[in-house]
This record gives sequence, structure tokens and C-alpha cells, in this order.
Amino acid sequence: MELEPVWWDDEADCVGYVDQRKLPHELHRERARDVSRVVDAIATLAVRGAPAIGVFGAYGTALARRSLSDDAFAAAAARIRRARPTAVNLAWAIDRMLASGGALAEARAIHAEQRAVDEAIGRHGAALLPAEGAVLTHCNTGALATAGFGTALGAIVAAHRAGKRLHVYVDETRPLLQGARLTTYELASAGVPATLIVDGAAAATMALKSVAAVIVGADRIARNGDTANKIGTFGVALAAAYHRIPFYVAAPRSTVDFALRDGSQIVIEERAAFEVREFGGVPIAPPDVATFNPAFDVTPGRLIAGIVTEYGVARPPYDDSIPDLATRPAFALVRS
Amino acid sequence: MELEPVWWDDEADCVGYVDQRKLPHELHRERARDVSRVVDAIATLAVRGAPAIGVFGAYGTALARRSLSDDAFAAAAARIRRARPTAVNLAWAIDRMLASGGALAEARAIHAEQRAVDEAIGRHGAALLPAEGAVLTHCNTGALATAGFGTALGAIVAAHRAGKRLHVYVDETRPLLQGARLTTYELASAGVPATLIVDGAAAATMALKSVAAVIVGADRIARNGDTANKIGTFGVALAAAYHRIPFYVAAPRSTVDFALRDGSQIVIEERAAFEVREFGGVPIAPPDVATFNPAFDVTPGRLIAGIVTEYGVARPPYDDSIPDLATRPAFALVRS
Repeated sequence: MELEPVWWDDEADCVGYVDQRKLPHELHRERARDVSRVVDAIATLAVRGAPAIGVFGAYGTALARRSLSDDAFAAAAARIRRARPTAVNLAWAIDRMLASGGALAEARAIHAEQRAVDEAIGRHGAALLPAEGAVLTHCNTGALATAGFGTALGAIVAAHRAGKRLHVYVDETRPLLQGARLTTYELASAGVPATLIVDGAAAATMALKSVAAVIVGADRIARNGDTANKIGTFGVALAAAYHRIPFYVAAPRSTVDFALRDGSQIVIEERAAFEVREFGGVPIAPPDVATFNPAFDVTPGRLIAGIVTEYGVARPPYDDSIPDLATRPAFALVRS
Repeated sequence: MELEPVWWDDEADCVGYVDQRKLPHELHRERARDVSRVVDAIATLAVRGAPAIGVFGAYGTALARRSLSDDAFAAAAARIRRARPTAVNLAWAIDRMLASGGALAEARAIHAEQRAVDEAIGRHGAALLPAEGAVLTHCNTGALATAGFGTALGAIVAAHRAGKRLHVYVDETRPLLQGARLTTYELASAGVPATLIVDGAAAATMALKSVAAVIVGADRIARNGDTANKIGTFGVALAAAYHRIPFYVAAPRSTVDFALRDGSQIVIEERAAFEVREFGGVPIAPPDVATFNPAFDVTPGRLIAGIVTEYGVARPPYDDSIPDLATRPAFALVRS
């Protein structure tokens, strides 16, 4: 059974979620009974991962619809929609909820489709990974990040379950350490051998440890393949390119923003200084030092060997293969 | 006045040092009254930075000579020599101390020469930096790292004092956060504007912040320019190459290991798992997760635009310019 990061709590008639900030030390389940709590959970990264935020936002919108007047509901949906700016999935999910009138059934359908999409991404991604050898990943893209089976990490786990003998090098992923806290936790749960490294050790690990492939997730993908993902991804892609290691991105089609010509148009969220100045709540720098804390960077499409979606692997030139994705029929029509 | 990380304590007739693990919160001065304390201070990174370790090891050898029999002295010097394996300066300083019979005057001379060497490195390095603009550095290479004026950070401070208007982006430098803890502290002391970033943000910072130059230190340099430096340096060099930003190394000639043909021959120290799994005693990952924790990586010489030593700037091809450094006369003959 996968870890469920978000769900509809039928008993309490509200949204349930795991506060991922407390992992790996504690699997702490919470209830969000109003929109403020939903927005706060997204903004503080208690719930994180672009697809999981989408599912959570959908449940949050259903929650709002059950308790609010039409005007207040529209305002609440807009608040959820802008709780984080970079990931496209959140806006996509809220727009879909609004089109359906905010029905809980629509949120459940979004969640069920996420699982089906993830299963397909995992299958296509697993096929790209070696039968045996080392792979490297950044941040967390497992079930905790998607509310399904995961994207990049889902592909790794699917490959392991299919009998591939992988060893995973996990970037700790500062500032919020999703790799150290969440990815190692999910890999241990799945029984996949893993080794934790600091982000700065990725290039040395590629040089010394025969890394055969790198696979990461995405928060927003432009039409030319330029990909916004967790800060540090760009550097990993550059190191992979230098070592001629294929660098793959795995993400649902909903991550693609077909309106964006290239990555220069992606809005990059900058986050608070304390994330950099502190480490696990402990101050590590002079308290008044200035910081630059972008949550994401943009990896140029030319560094990406393939983009895995539920439809298969899009290959360069992305200016052809990505717009083609827009023409595919809806992947899964699950209605509860 | 520069920060003094190590000194001879005339009053107590022993070695003094700053426990850099307590910075930036506390400037804690300690005394090492025996060789075990000297070795421990080096091994635990209370004293760190390749040239500072050399000066500290020299004082430690003088301390040993004053209290030990010939046999015990030889054993003590050997213990200090192998307290850390990668930096060449330590072995170089101990060998020089042994050749002099362990005299305190020789340790003082090594220290005084370090200051003269650093002053020259700072002057040559400052000339490479822009009159105005952003520069990026990794780890700590200031006075705290060298017991003089610093190398790469010394060049930045020298440029600032010469009227150049620099803004410094500082990689925090996991796992031990020398950038966050020490470089920001030294830059604030010197009045140089600085911004702290996580290591993973270096490539994004280059893409977004018009970084004009990168300058870092070195722990060991091979004859072809391949350079061992703090883990993460290699990735910074790759990001600089991608953005066509000149990447400079600044280090004393004593950092060059003329016996090494290339970087593949450099022994890379691997350090303990807790450095990656914890911070400040706070666990940040599952307690049993495997880690790979190399203290250094090797940046290929072909990624380095220039290597600044006390003799000036060595340029590619390094197979010519670096062996030429071996032929230069001793830089500073200071004898107290």
C-alpha cells in the first residue's frame, strides 16, 4: 500500500492530510476543516509535491463548496488557487473543480485519475531505467508528492518491483530536505536500497559511482521542454550532461503548461529567508544575512533526454513532441 | 585586523585556536596543550582550511618537540601529519618542521610566510574580479581558513578594499556549512555585501543574477590543473562553464602536488555519516540510512580559467604553467 498524503475524510466530512514537515520522524495525520487550513498547509509545505497539491486543492475546493455561499466559494477557490504560484497542477485542478461546480465527486475523480496517471508514468519510466545499477534523484516525487504512486520515484519503485536491481542516490535537497526526509523514507518503505548525499555531492557521485540514469519530477514544463523543478535540479542536469548520463523528467501531462513558449516565462517562487538561515530550526548563519531562496530552477530542455508522462516518453525535439501531447485524449475517465 | 584562527600562545606556551564549529554564534578561543588535542582539532574541523591546518600543524609540531623524547616526537609529528588526508599543506608543513628539528621559530616563519603568500594571492586574485558586479564562492577560504588573509575570499576582500563594488553570493556548503557559518561572518566583518544561497541554487543564481566570476580555494591541485576542493565545487564549476562565467581557483603554491599527474590520483577523504544525517544534533533523515559523504570533489582543470597563486595567475594549458611554478624561488624568506 502506498503512503496516502491527502484524502477525503468521510467520517469528519473534511480533508485529511499528512503533515510532511514532521517526516521521517512522525507520520502525523491532520484534518483541514476550513479553507484557511487548506491554504496554510499548501503554503507551509505540510502538503507538497505539485500533483499532491492539485488533489489536495481539489478536495479543499469541495470542502469550501459544502459550507460557503456562492461569492465566498469563488473567493475561497481563488485563495487556494494562488497558495503556491509555480506548479501548474493546482490551478488546473481548481479550474476543473470550478467547472464542475465544486462537487466532491469531481475531487475524487481527480484523485483516482492521478493514481491511474502515476501508474502509467511509473511503467513508462521504469522501462527507461537499467536492469541493474545506480540511479540518482532529487527532491521527493513519490506517493507523498502526488497522492498516487509518484512520478520519478514511482518509476524507480516500479522498476524495483519489476525486478530491476537499482541502487538510488538521493540528494538531500536543501533547503527543506525533502530528499533526506521523504525520499529516503519512501524508498526504505518500498525496500529499495538507497544512499543519501548532500546536494553538492551529486557531481562527485556521478563521477565515482557509475550512475546510469538520473530521473526527477517537474513542477511546470514549457512547450520547448524547459522544466521548472525543485531548486538544485538544474545543477544535477548539468552534472549529468557532463558525465553523459541520461537525465529524465517524469511528470503528468497536467504539469505541462502549453501556453509557455519556454522556461523564461515560468514564474519562480521565492521563499522566506529562514529556510536558508536555519537548518531544522537551528540558526546556521548570522541572523541578518541576506538570502536568495528560489524554490525552483529551470532546467533547459536541451539537457533532458526524455520527458515521461502517462502517454509515454516524449523525446527531443520537444517543440514537436510536447505540443503533440496536447492533442491526446483524456487519459483516464474515472468518475465515482 | 583579520581574524586569527590559530596562533602561538606565548603566555601559556602552547597552541591557541578558534573553535570554528561554534561560529558564527560564538568566537570561542581554545588552547591545545598536547598533540592529541591538536590532532582532534584538525580531525573534527575545529580548525579547518588547508593552509590554516598547515600552520596549526606546524605549531603543534613545535609543541610536541618541547615536551617529548625524540621517538615520541617523531610519532607525534606523524600523527599530526595524517590527521586529515587530502590537503597537501599539512604534510608539507610537518615535513618542513621535521627538517628544522621542530623549532617554534620555524612554525612562526611558516605562519609569517602564509600571510605574505596570502597578501600576494589576494592582490593577483583581486585583479581578476570585475570593477562592479556579482561573484560567487563556495565554502570558506578567508582568514579563518588560511591563518593569513585568505585565498579566494582574500581576493574578494582585497578587491572590495581596492574600491571594487562586489556583491558576493555564498554557497552554504553542506554538510558542515562553512559558507553559511564562516564566509558570511567574514564578509560581514569586512563590510562586503553578501547573499547566502543553498548549494543547489548556484546554477539558478548564475542564470538569474549576472554572476561575473566564480572564485574558490583548493585543497590539492594536480599537475594538469585538476583541483580537489570542498564537495560541491565540481558542480559549481560545471554551472559556471555552462553560463560562460570564468571559474578561478586561488591557493598557495604549497597546495600544488607536483607528484600528481592528474586528479584521479588524489585521495578523497570520506567523512562520517552523521554529518549528512544530522545537523546540530538534530536528525534530518531516517537514522539508519546509508550515506556517501566525500569531503572533496575533483574539478577538472579544463573547467578552470585560471589558478591564482602567490606567483600570479597560472593559465591553461596547466601541463605547462603548473610545472613552471615548481621552478620559482621561495616566495618569502621570513625568519623570526
